[in-house]
Amino acid sequence: MANPILIEVTRGPLVESWHRGAIAVSDSEGLLALKVGNVSEPIYPRSAIKALQALPLIESGAADHFGYGPREIALACASHIGTEMHTTLADEMLHRAGLSETALGCGAHVPLGAAAAKELYKSGHEPNQLHNNCSGKHAGMLATAIHLGESTSGYWKPDHPVQRRVLHAIEDMCGERLGPDVEGIDGCSVPNWAMPLSVMARMFARLVTGDGLAPQRRQAIQRILGACWEHPELIAGPRRTDTVVLQKLPERVFIKTGAEGVYCGAFPKLGLGFALKIDDGAKRAASGTAMALIEQIYPLAPGLPHQRSIKSWRGDEVATIRSSIFLEDALQTLKR
Amino acid sequence: MANPILIEVTRGPLVESWHRGAIAVSDSEGLLALKVGNVSEPIYPRSAIKALQALPLIESGAADHFGYGPREIALACASHIGTEMHTTLADEMLHRAGLSETALGCGAHVPLGAAAAKELYKSGHEPNQLHNNCSGKHAGMLATAIHLGESTSGYWKPDHPVQRRVLHAIEDMCGERLGPDVEGIDGCSVPNWAMPLSVMARMFARLVTGDGLAPQRRQAIQRILGACWEHPELIAGPRRTDTVVLQKLPERVFIKTGAEGVYCGAFPKLGLGFALKIDDGAKRAASGTAMALIEQIYPLAPGLPHQRSIKSWRGDEVATIRSSIFLEDALQTLKR
Repeated sequence: MANPILIEVTRGPLVESWHRGAIAVSDSEGLLALKVGNVSEPIYPRSAIKALQALPLIESGAADHFGYGPREIALACASHIGTEMHTTLADEMLHRAGLSETALGCGAHVPLGAAAAKELYKSGHEPNQLHNNCSGKHAGMLATAIHLGESTSGYWKPDHPVQRRVLHAIEDMCGERLGPDVEGIDGCSVPNWAMPLSVMARMFARLVTGDGLAPQRRQAIQRILGACWEHPELIAGPRRTDTVVLQKLPERVFIKTGAEGVYCGAFPKLGLGFALKIDDGAKRAASGTAMALIEQIYPLAPGLPHQRSIKSWRGDEVATIRSSIFLEDALQTLKR
Repeated sequence: MANPILIEVTRGPLVESWHRGAIAVSDSEGLLALKVGNVSEPIYPRSAIKALQALPLIESGAADHFGYGPREIALACASHIGTEMHTTLADEMLHRAGLSETALGCGAHVPLGAAAAKELYKSGHEPNQLHNNCSGKHAGMLATAIHLGESTSGYWKPDHPVQRRVLHAIEDMCGERLGPDVEGIDGCSVPNWAMPLSVMARMFARLVTGDGLAPQRRQAIQRILGACWEHPELIAGPRRTDTVVLQKLPERVFIKTGAEGVYCGAFPKLGLGFALKIDDGAKRAASGTAMALIEQIYPLAPGLPHQRSIKSWRGDEVATIRSSIFLEDALQTLKR
């Protein structure tokens, strides 16, 4: 059966486009506070689990060894927009581990931020791997390998110890075995493992509650989450959705976007995690759904980056982005 | 009922995202050679009908008056990527009508082509209205107003004579009255009218067959289609989907993309028009479906721009874009 329509895009008197998807909100035991659509099929979390991919960086002792503080840890969890603030810090992380940009395996791409891309070209430079939105994550992975005396060659490959450690941390956090049947390769070349949205949501509830986790793991997680709330501008960039939410609701909402229409996060005060996926992968629908969910929990939250309209190039509002009646009704059933 | 899944995006062993949509292929009488999903609901054609929006430019005599040849007419039908070739020609069209860039009402945006945007910034310039992908269409509209002695003020508004003429030409071509109940405003600020995909497909069949049209209209259409096949590089830009298809299959396929997942076109030798819309508005799925349709009609067509994979930033194929089994089966039933 098709997932329900969550987001509608209207133009004039008509609905022009519509986005289907699924949402799971869970406590740390797996009790679902909300279930919309099919939450049982494996979904790649993509970049939404960068906070979990950063666990070995802390737990191996590499972060402490190289003197990485909250800023470096935040960047390791980031899908950043490639401003100088981000690239300089990624470069510094590499230098402290005795490496440089060429050690990265993530590949280069034009900065995600339009202004950053413009500045780069105006200055006559070309994008390098530091501009890749995952450069902080990769710098952290490399630091872990160096600290543990491993070869950095092919550190992004699924069978390299760096990625095996990430896999084991995620398996431990989600309580599932993640084999080749759910393994895909992300755009930045590291492996990513699919799991049901229900499991993903439970994992994020455990992340913020620490329920059932060893003290060392809980401590590592606190450092990671604390770093993200302390330096939200590093997680994405100025005025970006994730950055603004972390700025507006520190310690109340953790949130991270993933490619192909994924959003994961958690509400620590409520002990709930969430995971959602738009079938077609549209970012506008994923962030619209995530903002609607957050507004259901925190209706008085000021200035959330909830895009409700699309403007013409002249600047007039010509289209709207809105929650479907189905989504609105479903959110109201959310057991708080 | 949900439209069927037409395109799947896979990663590793799993389908990561999927796109639903509808397709109509029709002859000039409205007999459907193919019907996939719901083809009866009104859909905005957006830029897919630029060839029709250009009819008054020819039929008013404005094109002849200002000496617009096939290049200028092609640009009036274009969603171009904003290279210097495109902006210079749009500027020249305006100058011949005694106007300049400031007369345009389309608004400015960064060139759609990444290379064009990069060149622009490297040269230290900012985008202006000539870089808008619709600047050729707007220049043609302005030329029509000037030629007919009308004020150019607000020429983009639904009640301006320029847009009324466009409306009447489209109403005549589609055989339907298009009222405020189906009127939306496009990103470039001119009105756009929604119609069922079945009607849109029939309209494109009439466009290429001329069935039931007055001789003057047929002549105008021949100039427009001829211009697009003669100068495909102006319609979009080098290596762009529409440009490559027009280059590879001149006089066999007419094709034009529209925003929010629309594709329209026609197969003149078969007397068939087509129109398709991806529910969620995704371009990758719209062009994937359009290429699958063209390959069904012309299976031996060489080098169509059919994107079948997504690469990592390192350059490895990590995901695929493919037709669903449903789409493949449906296309095989197409009555040629």
